[in-house]
Amino acid sequence: MRKRRKKLSLKAGLPPGTVVHIGEERTVPPEYRVFTYTENNFSEQTPSSIDECNALVDRSRVTWINLDGIHEPAVLTRAGEIFHIHPLALEDIGNTEQRPKAEEYEGQIFIVIKMLTYDEATRTIRSEQVSMVLMRNLLITFQERPGDVFEPVRDRIRNSKGKLRRMGADYLGYALIDVIVDNYYYILEVLGERLEDLEDAIAENPGKESLSGVQQIKKELIYLRKSIWPLREVAAALEKRESDLIAKSTILYLRDVYDHTIELIDTLESLRDISSSLIDIYLSSISNRQNVVMKTLTLIATIFMPLTFIVGVYGMNFKDMPELKLAWGYPAVLGLMAAITIGMLIYFKRSGWFR
Amino acid sequence: MRKRRKKLSLKAGLPPGTVVHIGEERTVPPEYRVFTYTENNFSEQTPSSIDECNALVDRSRVTWINLDGIHEPAVLTRAGEIFHIHPLALEDIGNTEQRPKAEEYEGQIFIVIKMLTYDEATRTIRSEQVSMVLMRNLLITFQERPGDVFEPVRDRIRNSKGKLRRMGADYLGYALIDVIVDNYYYILEVLGERLEDLEDAIAENPGKESLSGVQQIKKELIYLRKSIWPLREVAAALEKRESDLIAKSTILYLRDVYDHTIELIDTLESLRDISSSLIDIYLSSISNRQNVVMKTLTLIATIFMPLTFIVGVYGMNFKDMPELKLAWGYPAVLGLMAAITIGMLIYFKRSGWFR
Amino acid sequence: MRKRRKKLSLKAGLPPGTVVHIGEERTVPPEYRVFTYTENNFSEQTPSSIDECNALVDRSRVTWINLDGIHEPAVLTRAGEIFHIHPLALEDIGNTEQRPKAEEYEGQIFIVIKMLTYDEATRTIRSEQVSMVLMRNLLITFQERPGDVFEPVRDRIRNSKGKLRRMGADYLGYALIDVIVDNYYYILEVLGERLEDLEDAIAENPGKESLSGVQQIKKELIYLRKSIWPLREVAAALEKRESDLIAKSTILYLRDVYDHTIELIDTLESLRDISSSLIDIYLSSISNRQNVVMKTLTLIATIFMPLTFIVGVYGMNFKDMPELKLAWGYPAVLGLMAAITIGMLIYFKRSGWFR
Amino acid sequence: MRKRRKKLSLKAGLPPGTVVHIGEERTVPPEYRVFTYTENNFSEQTPSSIDECNALVDRSRVTWINLDGIHEPAVLTRAGEIFHIHPLALEDIGNTEQRPKAEEYEGQIFIVIKMLTYDEATRTIRSEQVSMVLMRNLLITFQERPGDVFEPVRDRIRNSKGKLRRMGADYLGYALIDVIVDNYYYILEVLGERLEDLEDAIAENPGKESLSGVQQIKKELIYLRKSIWPLREVAAALEKRESDLIAKSTILYLRDVYDHTIELIDTLESLRDISSSLIDIYLSSISNRQNVVMKTLTLIATIFMPLTFIVGVYGMNFKDMPELKLAWGYPAVLGLMAAITIGMLIYFKRSGWFR
Amino acid sequence: MRKRRKKLSLKAGLPPGTVVHIGEERTVPPEYRVFTYTENNFSEQTPSSIDECNALVDRSRVTWINLDGIHEPAVLTRAGEIFHIHPLALEDIGNTEQRPKAEEYEGQIFIVIKMLTYDEATRTIRSEQVSMVLMRNLLITFQERPGDVFEPVRDRIRNSKGKLRRMGADYLGYALIDVIVDNYYYILEVLGERLEDLEDAIAENPGKESLSGVQQIKKELIYLRKSIWPLREVAAALEKRESDLIAKSTILYLRDVYDHTIELIDTLESLRDISSSLIDIYLSSISNRQNVVMKTLTLIATIFMPLTFIVGVYGMNFKDMPELKLAWGYPAVLGLMAAITIGMLIYFKRSGWFR
Repeated sequence: MRKRRKKLSLKAGLPPGTVVHIGEERTVPPEYRVFTYTENNFSEQTPSSIDECNALVDRSRVTWINLDGIHEPAVLTRAGEIFHIHPLALEDIGNTEQRPKAEEYEGQIFIVIKMLTYDEATRTIRSEQVSMVLMRNLLITFQERPGDVFEPVRDRIRNSKGKLRRMGADYLGYALIDVIVDNYYYILEVLGERLEDLEDAIAENPGKESLSGVQQIKKELIYLRKSIWPLREVAAALEKRESDLIAKSTILYLRDVYDHTIELIDTLESLRDISSSLIDIYLSSISNRQNVVMKTLTLIATIFMPLTFIVGVYGMNFKDMPELKLAWGYPAVLGLMAAITIGMLIYFKRSGWFR
Repeated sequence: MRKRRKKLSLKAGLPPGTVVHIGEERTVPPEYRVFTYTENNFSEQTPSSIDECNALVDRSRVTWINLDGIHEPAVLTRAGEIFHIHPLALEDIGNTEQRPKAEEYEGQIFIVIKMLTYDEATRTIRSEQVSMVLMRNLLITFQERPGDVFEPVRDRIRNSKGKLRRMGADYLGYALIDVIVDNYYYILEVLGERLEDLEDAIAENPGKESLSGVQQIKKELIYLRKSIWPLREVAAALEKRESDLIAKSTILYLRDVYDHTIELIDTLESLRDISSSLIDIYLSSISNRQNVVMKTLTLIATIFMPLTFIVGVYGMNFKDMPELKLAWGYPAVLGLMAAITIGMLIYFKRSGWFR
Repeated sequence: MRKRRKKLSLKAGLPPGTVVHIGEERTVPPEYRVFTYTENNFSEQTPSSIDECNALVDRSRVTWINLDGIHEPAVLTRAGEIFHIHPLALEDIGNTEQRPKAEEYEGQIFIVIKMLTYDEATRTIRSEQVSMVLMRNLLITFQERPGDVFEPVRDRIRNSKGKLRRMGADYLGYALIDVIVDNYYYILEVLGERLEDLEDAIAENPGKESLSGVQQIKKELIYLRKSIWPLREVAAALEKRESDLIAKSTILYLRDVYDHTIELIDTLESLRDISSSLIDIYLSSISNRQNVVMKTLTLIATIFMPLTFIVGVYGMNFKDMPELKLAWGYPAVLGLMAAITIGMLIYFKRSGWFR
Repeated sequence: MRKRRKKLSLKAGLPPGTVVHIGEERTVPPEYRVFTYTENNFSEQTPSSIDECNALVDRSRVTWINLDGIHEPAVLTRAGEIFHIHPLALEDIGNTEQRPKAEEYEGQIFIVIKMLTYDEATRTIRSEQVSMVLMRNLLITFQERPGDVFEPVRDRIRNSKGKLRRMGADYLGYALIDVIVDNYYYILEVLGERLEDLEDAIAENPGKESLSGVQQIKKELIYLRKSIWPLREVAAALEKRESDLIAKSTILYLRDVYDHTIELIDTLESLRDISSSLIDIYLSSISNRQNVVMKTLTLIATIFMPLTFIVGVYGMNFKDMPELKLAWGYPAVLGLMAAITIGMLIYFKRSGWFR
Repeated sequence: MRKRRKKLSLKAGLPPGTVVHIGEERTVPPEYRVFTYTENNFSEQTPSSIDECNALVDRSRVTWINLDGIHEPAVLTRAGEIFHIHPLALEDIGNTEQRPKAEEYEGQIFIVIKMLTYDEATRTIRSEQVSMVLMRNLLITFQERPGDVFEPVRDRIRNSKGKLRRMGADYLGYALIDVIVDNYYYILEVLGERLEDLEDAIAENPGKESLSGVQQIKKELIYLRKSIWPLREVAAALEKRESDLIAKSTILYLRDVYDHTIELIDTLESLRDISSSLIDIYLSSISNRQNVVMKTLTLIATIFMPLTFIVGVYGMNFKDMPELKLAWGYPAVLGLMAAITIGMLIYFKRSGWFR
């Protein structure tokens, strides 16, 4: 989840409410998809402009407009005009660096949330901003890119499965948030599993890659934290807000989302703790290993330095060294050295040197 | 307490209220046990289906239905229908990764809690989720596996001991929570004792196994934390909730449970502190030991390198080295070297090298 | 303050309100002491049973019953019956692992607090649980062992010194808490002084014992924390509770106790900070010392290895080594080696090697 | 952002409300710039004294007086007299070490805020204090130096772009705060990018400069923290204050500023986390590298010490060393040494020494 | 700021309200100074007893009694009698270890605060306790020693400068607190400058003294914390207390003091952060330096060990070593050794050994 360098600072000095796209540059045209449904029927269409979307809105039914691609300010501005979206909300939709939040403006609730997906192939986490504007019987969602985690919700609309078709736009909004939050569990599980693998790897052989693996996860947890902590506030704000736009029966479900965010935070913090202690384990392993190396060196030096000294002595060229002339001088010295070596090894053994 | 890899993420995208079993896969059929009692009499039965359980419910007495085995969604769904359990509660019962919580729905209080047991043989902590649904004169408890810590409570029902038989289903619920919480003390005591043993082991000989022992406990404390901290919220929620389902006299007992959870948290945090400082002690021991090794090496090298140099000098083959021809040259050099060695040892002694 | 291993978990499964003694096993019989007093007179007696104590209670005067020895459940149970002590309070009195707390039951305030004493001889902190039950004109205190810090308060009763004799049982309770809290200051002062001594010791010569001394204090601070933090809640609860049992004039004094607990916590946290930074100092001293050792080794090796090599060269037995035959060859080589040594020392000096 | 040593302590003992300039010493005269505007027209002037500014104020229009240079107490005192600025506010304007805050005095809101600018050339962050006094239709801003980030706002006044010209002095104040806050994003982005560069540098080759680079950023983050955290309180205070001076429609915009400050704090804390973990990575790299060095040394010593010992043995001058006389003695010893070397290398290889 | 060992525990067991002097032992008699003033005139006197002070009190004017020397309990007790100071306040005045606090008793506000002064000569921070009792038109201040930071306030009374003479005793109290707080800035500035000096010293040459300097400052910050944090509560309590003794116009000034304490805390925490990161820098410098030492050693050993081995080979006394008899054998070996050395240096160079 290498942070793409988006220039949030480009906005500096612009009047508030100015729609500027801050995020990856993209050139493909936005895509639109509109669902309208009641309990008994539904329609799904893919218009090609925001005005066409508007034509499909039927306030007696529930309408869900999904817009993929927020990189064209003109489209956002037009959407703002048509649906009377508050300028500050519009500005936030265009700014993909927006912190998750829930805000109520007159007649509309505005929600920003991060949708996280895990790319198995590249083993990276992709973050995408999803903005929602909830009005009476109308939900407009804005995404950065086509492709999302909403397909199960769409299927539930199509198949008339569960309560979704019987409930209003607020419940649809909840269902989308719920499916996003469920994906967070998946991300955390993946990270948790990678941590467990790294733990095994470190226990077996503490290599440099294991450490950088843990550091990588730790960094991803830092970014995740920035998405998940505000999520809790979003859930709490929605649950507690007494708004006409949110039915009482939906509140209970939002409380469930809130519980989930608490649990996510618990898990996130546990993973942080675990990754910290993995680093400690790694460092103490390295330290242990260094100790073994040092001991080896010291052992070798302590044994061979005296021996080398002794043979040096009898390599001296003094004229008058009586030992040299003795017949048993050579074997005696060899024996002496063997004795020294054995003595030292016993001493080391006794002082627990080999443990 | 190696976390079993349960796929919480399997739920992603399913409509809320869908009962999915998330947890260990099991194939044995669920077991049922039903107690009904008043102050004067009681009956205990083991029906074989949830419908049979229902037939035994007598709302004029206190009924406790205990279900072991939540891995069959069909059974949970049926229980939901019969007893009008809220869909969100049902979903949580099936999800063994649920965070401990207490929730009130209409006419029922729903509690999720973790039951921890310590397996002496494998020295591992086993965690099992217990869900309770409290209604008027009826308590339904759901467990993952047969075998629990409730036997003393069952005995109290059977023996008409204490207030239990005189009080309602709310007090029964309290008694079950109380016995679960009491077991947490046992777990923490076991971990505390293991920490004390490790402390002794580290003080004596800081081996790698001691460290990994502490790290293991630290990790278990991280998981325990996830069970104990929310427990406090559960206890607080129950104590403060003004519900018809909880009698005033029971509130006092719930406050006692709350106090216990606070104490558990205190103990848990102390154990975390202690395990952290054990790691510090271990690391400084390792560092000390390394120091000893380094000192030995340096001592040996500092003494023998100059000596080896000296004998090397007199091993040179220069034609004209007057010392070599002196009769007392050899003993003089030996004496010189002895003097150097003694001098160095004195110097080291004085500079506190051997401390 | 090695934690005595009391089996708190023995209680698991017993019905709440069951009086079980959790603590050190003792066999001596409990001791009783009863004071009754008004402003003008007082009596002090030592009955031999709890029933005799009851006979001495005079509700028109202030009565203080002090019971030493809570290890006999029968006595506690009997006291509960006579004085209508709440079952949960009775249970807590018997459990010496109880967290400090203040609880109000009908017509009585129940307080648990830890009395700490410092044993100069063994340099250990002893912790003893004191429970108080405050009723109208009656204070009952329960201790684990004879011997306490209350003697000054008893003297004040005997000598009619100060306000004590003019005020009610609530003020007596305050006076006892105050004297206990004052002893905490003493404990913290002792620990503070020991830390200062250790700081001096570490500055002078960082030995292993200094470190384990700091670690020991750190561990004691962890246990103290568990006594002192809840004390603040106790003081706050007493000060804020609007109970008939506590006179308005006493509230002011309880606020003073509260201030003292805040100050104790401040001091405790400061001591923790100091002990942490002492460990840092110790570790950096060790690291520094290791550096000195390494430098010595490197210095020796760097000087003698080249020299040994040079003498080795002229120890070779090649037939044709012209230098060997030169008359000034030997002094030249000696000179060369002297030059190398001096050059190296100058180089090391310049690169700040000796700092 | 080396903190210029301003002597805040110079103020000690002066009566409150005394205007003293605490900050960089400057000698240039203050500069003034006055905007007055309504929706339909505007005027921009640069008077040369504070009295001239006053003459330009038209309370039926919005007036913005901007004063560059607060180092002359006389000017501040005069401004205070003319515009009835509260003495405590005046004192704070002169003290460039003032903590960001928002305060309401009668008929005026006083805001202190830090304007941060990043100097690309010197790669340093410059901090400048901006004080604002908001009255009915009048905004007075005080800066330390000419040159600011307000040019875009001035352009918006000149070009009648956006809502700015239609709204009151409160909205102007908001616009200025907003543009300052937007610049904070830029600073944090710059620091974030520098951290990413340092991360790459450390991964590649952990040099001392990388470490000091991270330490430098860490220190800047400490200072930034002192500017950003209070900013949140400022934004919260403004948003929540029910003052006649702030229109309801502006509140919504202030809430947006508040959200931005929360996001800034999130980002700041993330950067702190990242810089901490960078230091960990650096240290473990150093430790790893040291390990490699130690291993090399040990490898060399372990191989050559025994060999040197062996050749030393056959360099001894004993008369009676039979091996020396054997024809194949020399090649045999060479072979032996080769065998030892190869054996050791195989042993090291097998024990994972080269990993 | 070595903590003088005052025996706070001496108080244990004394009845509350007992005036005991806890602090440095002193024998000089207390000094008294009394100011009385209205807007138009003032008088300054130095009586020699507390009763004489009382005679000078004129309740129609503002009276300030300043008492230097609180070590005589009799004086404090007498002051308590004369001015009806609450016993608990009296006790706190005598106890120089009292935590800063503000308390309201009937008709009086009691404030304890720490006055810090920096002694340039010994580079130490001196702490002195100042207690204030504020009554209607009367302020009594108690100090431990003559000599304080109040001289500027006295001058303002004498010179009729500022608002001081026009306002009541509450404003005088504020002025004294303000001047004490201003001195805290000075202390923190001094510590900040010392930290900057130490930072430069560590960057240049990380010596042991630098480290102990930082540790010293860190310890002083721990003590300062104990003075400054409660100060914030004092300021908040005074600002929020709705007391007849504090005029509305003074509240605004107290709020300013509160802001200052917040800023002090910010600065204090920043200094703590900085000193922590200085220690990190120091440790990593030491580690770096150790690395350099190790590298030098390894370089030397790696080059000379093989060379010494080679010359050892040709120092062997085998009869049959053909190389020895070759005319070019000696130069060839020398060349070989030169080649090995150069080869190694190139290898080290390439592997970045010298970086």
